[in-house]
Formats: sequence, C-alpha cells, structure tokens
Amino acid sequence: MNPGRCAACRYLRRRCPPDCIFSPYFPPNNPQRFASIHRIYGASNVAKLLQQLPSHLRTQAADSLYLEAQYRIEDPVYGCVGLISLLQQQIHDVERQLAMTQAEIAFRARHPQAVESNLLNNVGNPSFSNQASSWFM
Amino acid sequence: MNPGRCAACRYLRRRCPPDCIFSPYFPPNNPQRFASIHRIYGASNVAKLLQQLPSHLRTQAADSLYLEAQYRIEDPVYGCVGLISLLQQQIHDVERQLAMTQAEIAFRARHPQAVESNLLNNVGNPSFSNQASSWFM
Repeated sequence: MNPGRCAACRYLRRRCPPDCIFSPYFPPNNPQRFASIHRIYGASNVAKLLQQLPSHLRTQAADSLYLEAQYRIEDPVYGCVGLISLLQQQIHDVERQLAMTQAEIAFRARHPQAVESNLLNNVGNPSFSNQASSWFM
Repeated sequence: MNPGRCAACRYLRRRCPPDCIFSPYFPPNNPQRFASIHRIYGASNVAKLLQQLPSHLRTQAADSLYLEAQYRIEDPVYGCVGLISLLQQQIHDVERQLAMTQAEIAFRARHPQAVESNLLNNVGNPSFSNQASSWFM
C-alpha cells in the first residue's frame, strides 16, 4: 500500500498519479469525504466537473459537492433543496414579523395616547409584540 | 424510433422497458430534464437513488435532483450551496433589521418626547428607520 495515495485513489484501488485530479481536494486522512461524493455523483462525473474549472476554484467546488452529497445522503428525497425551502420559509416569516413591527411603530406614532399605558408596562415583554401585532391583522 | 420511450431511454438510445425506473419521472416531452440530471449525476446513480426510495417519493426526488443539477450547471463552483449561503445572509440581514426596529420601539417607549416631532414628520419615510436605528448602534 502506498501511504501517499489520496483518498480517491485509495477508494478506487488505483495508483495515485502525480497529476491526480482528486489528490489536492481529497487528502488520505478524510476517506469519508470522497466516499460521500462517489456515492452520489460517481468518480468520473466529479473528475469531469473539476477538470473543467480553473485550478484556483476547484477547492470550493469539491467542498460544495461534498456538502450537497452529504445533504442528499441525509435526505435522499429532497437533498439540499429541502434546506433551501426551509430557509425561504424562514425569510418569509422574519419579513412578515418585520412588516408587523414596522406597522406597530406607525400605529404608535399616530395614536400615542392609545398605546402609552400598555407600552410602558409591556416593553421588554416578548408577548407584547404579538398582542400589538394583532391590531394590524 | 419508438414514440413511447421516456426521455431517459431516448437519451441513452435504448429500449424503454415496461418497468423503466425513469419513465414516470422523465416524460418524452421534456428531454432537457433528463439531460441535465445525466450530465451531473450520471444515469446509473440516479437510477440507484430512485430505486432505493418508495415509489410515492420518487417524483419529489427526481424534481429535487433536477433542481440541484440545474444549479450546478449554472454555477459549477458552488451549485445550490451558493444559493444556501445567499439565503442565510438574507436571513441574517432581515433579523438584524428586525432587532433594530424592535429596539426603536423600546427607545420610543422610554423617550416619547425625544422622538415625537421627528416621528410624526417621518413615519412612512424609509430613511427614518435607518436614522433612528443609528441611535442604538
């Protein structure tokens, strides 16, 4: 066994040539990284993808392929598209909360007396924002 | 040419068997869908992935694989991991804006006189939020 072979060449049980396309991005101390990528994309597809990129962008490409492969192994149905949907929902929720809070400011500016007593008693109370938001819904 | 072959079997120039694993998810009228997936994952990896899933989840899996393949073709370096980073940054920005707006409400509750004249003049003016936010930074 040649201890200098990269994780990909060890996995594929082949000699690791000096110009190995995988070697800089799949060090022998992290065999799982190549195993995940190989399982989802296959070695030849990853090699093709890396070869078509300039060498200074290949580390980022190998990292992002590894991340996508991990997401797909953890969630074979949705992969990282599941995470994208989750993040889009989270943005929608925070934007809605922001719009309600901005509406709350506008309401207080127009009706200072109506909210003053509640305001002084409730600032810092997390449930107050929800109560106040209900005025605008 | 057999007009009943699915897009995958047409692409692979093979007979489309009655139990074709691709046929329900790659109709012949959308050849691009299979071409993209084949380019990134390869036919055998996609077949393996679909086969290991119960049939009622395969449509979603084919859709998400197609989306990921499209992202990777458009951005060979980051694929859909690029979009994930972008969405995470967007969440961070909106959460920061929300925290500033909530701090603005708390400030106004404690100093009603200090902001009253500005408030009545500036509500609805998008730049006011930024000015007011600067008080808390």
